[in-house]
Amino acid sequence: MKLVIGDRNYSSWSLRPWLVLKQMGLSFEEIPIRLREAGTKAEILKYSPSGKVPCLIDGEIVVWDSLAICEYLAEKKPSLWPADAKARAEARAISAEMHSGFMALRHDMPMEVHAYKPHDGRTATAEADIARIVSIWQSCRKRFGQGGPFLFGEFSVADAMFAPVAWRFLTYAVSLPPEARAWVDMMAALPAMQAWRAGAIAEAAE
Amino acid sequence: MKLVIGDRNYSSWSLRPWLVLKQMGLSFEEIPIRLREAGTKAEILKYSPSGKVPCLIDGEIVVWDSLAICEYLAEKKPSLWPADAKARAEARAISAEMHSGFMALRHDMPMEVHAYKPHDGRTATAEADIARIVSIWQSCRKRFGQGGPFLFGEFSVADAMFAPVAWRFLTYAVSLPPEARAWVDMMAALPAMQAWRAGAIAEAAE
Repeated sequence: MKLVIGDRNYSSWSLRPWLVLKQMGLSFEEIPIRLREAGTKAEILKYSPSGKVPCLIDGEIVVWDSLAICEYLAEKKPSLWPADAKARAEARAISAEMHSGFMALRHDMPMEVHAYKPHDGRTATAEADIARIVSIWQSCRKRFGQGGPFLFGEFSVADAMFAPVAWRFLTYAVSLPPEARAWVDMMAALPAMQAWRAGAIAEAAE
Repeated sequence: MKLVIGDRNYSSWSLRPWLVLKQMGLSFEEIPIRLREAGTKAEILKYSPSGKVPCLIDGEIVVWDSLAICEYLAEKKPSLWPADAKARAEARAISAEMHSGFMALRHDMPMEVHAYKPHDGRTATAEADIARIVSIWQSCRKRFGQGGPFLFGEFSVADAMFAPVAWRFLTYAVSLPPEARAWVDMMAALPAMQAWRAGAIAEAAE
């Protein structure tokens, strides 16, 4: 398998399926494309018909869009979603909520993995997004998180969908209640997340 | 099952899972909530923790977000996604691309089921969204549409995800190549889509 990804510092969409692949322990080839350059769009279109990253290539199968890639991978490894039907429905709901929403957070507090900008970007609408995200995490951890440190206990696609928010909350030094703090710190300490961050720093030095 | 939905004229997100339920032939209770009123948010929050419609309630299971509801229903009826793995991956990719994208089309050409506003809202960015959507439909119909009139032959979640675009293209009188025109007209003629439109007209008269 090959995964076309954008800059590690900025491409929150790329991080999501990349983290899922890493947590699955799958080996895959990365095709990195530098964003925000003159030839970026043409380069991405060589692989991804939407002209956007990420894009997964598995033989003859091409899957663009982060959430669709996660569903594709979950067909291969069903434990990427919670086993319990109610938990699984909720994991999909929060993943899809993240996929289509939180525009203020995305716009005002963009992912910049290796930056530190405490208190930047804290508009009222971004604060409302933060409050909703914290509420989601607290609800999941309390009701479904008994079996491990992730939102639904074991690692699931839902953790990957919110992984860029972990970096955002660290970059912008967002104060968090204990359960949310613990999830962010646990996520940031994952070897795969640390590897992503190291890659972001290396890219910046290029 | 109960489905919380917004105004039929405007709520493109509500239409998607509603259409899937109708095409499944499932009977379900509708909980309609009028949007854009003082008490709308509080009313939605009685059912949906995201404060947004649609929201599916199936006994103890609550699923908010249109795409998550579709995945939930597809677990009950797997034929809501194409049976072929490549087609299924692509159906999920275009569904997710619609779910997170096409912001210009949404903003400049909002769904208004029973309005007729030829040529309104045709900004350059909306035109680019239209071109991408037409390209998606042509590609799906050509490569996967042999078994029927829908994007992947038989009806799938992908048709539901693009159903609001059918109304938009009629409302704004968008010129389309033949394959795209045929899909729009076929969708608009579905009894469920006609029932949705009749409901939108009835709501406007209230």
